[in-house]
Amino acid sequence: MNADLNAAIAARLAWVAVDWGSSNLRAWAMTEDGQVLARSTSDKGMLSLTPETYETTLREVIGAWLPATGSVDVVVCGMAGARQGWREAAYLPIPTRLDDLARGTVTPPVADPRLRVHLLPGLSQGREESDRDAAGRDFDVMRGEETQLAGLVAGEPGFSGHVCLPGTHAKWARLEDGAVMGFETYLTGELYRLLAGQSVLHHSVGDDDLDAPACREAFVAAVRESHDAPEGFTRQLFALRAADLLDTTLPPGEARRARLAARLSGLAIGLELAGACRVLPADESVTLIGTEDLCRRYALALEALGNGSRYQDAETAVLAGLGLARTALRST
Amino acid sequence: MNADLNAAIAARLAWVAVDWGSSNLRAWAMTEDGQVLARSTSDKGMLSLTPETYETTLREVIGAWLPATGSVDVVVCGMAGARQGWREAAYLPIPTRLDDLARGTVTPPVADPRLRVHLLPGLSQGREESDRDAAGRDFDVMRGEETQLAGLVAGEPGFSGHVCLPGTHAKWARLEDGAVMGFETYLTGELYRLLAGQSVLHHSVGDDDLDAPACREAFVAAVRESHDAPEGFTRQLFALRAADLLDTTLPPGEARRARLAARLSGLAIGLELAGACRVLPADESVTLIGTEDLCRRYALALEALGNGSRYQDAETAVLAGLGLARTALRST
Repeated sequence: MNADLNAAIAARLAWVAVDWGSSNLRAWAMTEDGQVLARSTSDKGMLSLTPETYETTLREVIGAWLPATGSVDVVVCGMAGARQGWREAAYLPIPTRLDDLARGTVTPPVADPRLRVHLLPGLSQGREESDRDAAGRDFDVMRGEETQLAGLVAGEPGFSGHVCLPGTHAKWARLEDGAVMGFETYLTGELYRLLAGQSVLHHSVGDDDLDAPACREAFVAAVRESHDAPEGFTRQLFALRAADLLDTTLPPGEARRARLAARLSGLAIGLELAGACRVLPADESVTLIGTEDLCRRYALALEALGNGSRYQDAETAVLAGLGLARTALRST
Repeated sequence: MNADLNAAIAARLAWVAVDWGSSNLRAWAMTEDGQVLARSTSDKGMLSLTPETYETTLREVIGAWLPATGSVDVVVCGMAGARQGWREAAYLPIPTRLDDLARGTVTPPVADPRLRVHLLPGLSQGREESDRDAAGRDFDVMRGEETQLAGLVAGEPGFSGHVCLPGTHAKWARLEDGAVMGFETYLTGELYRLLAGQSVLHHSVGDDDLDAPACREAFVAAVRESHDAPEGFTRQLFALRAADLLDTTLPPGEARRARLAARLSGLAIGLELAGACRVLPADESVTLIGTEDLCRRYALALEALGNGSRYQDAETAVLAGLGLARTALRST
């Protein structure tokens, strides 16, 4: 049965898409016309591998899809192409056209003749001293997100505008005519997790639910406060703990912990938006690429500040970006 | 020999000063005129004790100093007086005169007739909604720092001005005529430790040394950047990591890690100062109370922003504050 299924996949398989991050990898069996035949995942991310163990890991994850003879392209984005990954695909300096990521691809040595592996590069940005505090640029890197941006451009060639990719290290990119002109990274997600899980605030903070009106309200108020007075950020963090001790208007139990979590999330995202909005035209709609939950949260925050947004699913984007790179690789 | 020494201490002992925090306690054997006869410490802080185990712990730490007969005052500040401590000494709401902390003292039940234990209260502050974003007040609490402030007032009755107590949770207090009129807490120290030790920045950050000119320069530049553009804080955090990957002007090895640590410290303290300086008159000198190393760091940061400062040692301050409370207790 499983063998039959795998044979059916192998028969229609045109290429394999892989997003290989620090802590896991996701692979998709793709048809020629961009349909997903099968998905597979593994927790063997870059941090748990050495260059010698990548090929074995890849075969564990996608081996069942491979045809008995012939070879397939495996197009990989993410940390597998980092210096400490499988083989380094050096950062392309910006500005970079997103339909041209394939020019930075490297091919690691592979023993299995059925595999033609292509590791996509990340993007890097140097510092521009001149106007660093205004709309200037600082050192920055991305590896993986550029492929999601390429997926956006695959669907909308010549796209111009600001794109936000929320996450552990949230990225904001400015695109002009399908090229990345500048980007910046905010440590928002990582900071939230450290504060909620490992600081004194862990006594006060639980899981929020922005569908609950009280949480939503607390989130939006915190976004505005942090955006309007970013200098108060570390003070508001402790004030959240003090409110848990002193504020008699807070509900007890999990409702209290949820509301304070919503406030913490709003403070962290509001600080990011205070930074990002200094380069964002007031009336511009932001394109959000990420998971639905997180993008809804950012959309709500942007709305509170008067900015519209639209949402693109991260998986759809990364598959479209890997597909765009594969097309470019085949035409060279 | 040790017995002789202890007998000599017991003969001159007038009272015992204790600073009992979350993770440790420090005790001092004091003479009537404020000299320190002996010091003792333990890692049995509030977090590792239950109400029933405080007395035993106290006897382990100070028992050798106690006379065979008679009793001595043991004046305690810090988390031993928290709700989850030995017995709760409820927060006194501000404004509070610092020579009047003794009125909030509680006496836990003690079996040993030689011990007269007094737990000092902390201070609390309610929210003032009206002008919260300007010089308004938010919920806040302190427990332990009020005694250091009392120590300042013991030496300078009627003191008015701003006092900063750097640390895990840095406190800024506004004193008028020896009373606390308002205060705020910044999560600076805890945030630095989380970022340096447990975020992606731990790859880039080591131990800094502000006596080294390059570190000092990096620290001061970061203080100014964070103060001038606090909205960029979480972006500058990631840019620090990116600089480690891309900036060819950085030295290698430990010098690099030291310089990036100095930058991280400057970013965190600069953000705090951006908040604190909104209520600090531009020409006012700040009184710093804390450890010498940390106060030197803050003095350098304040200097970079044009504010003077002076330094008081934290141990001296806490002993003077506990002494002031003891005097008040004896006069009632």
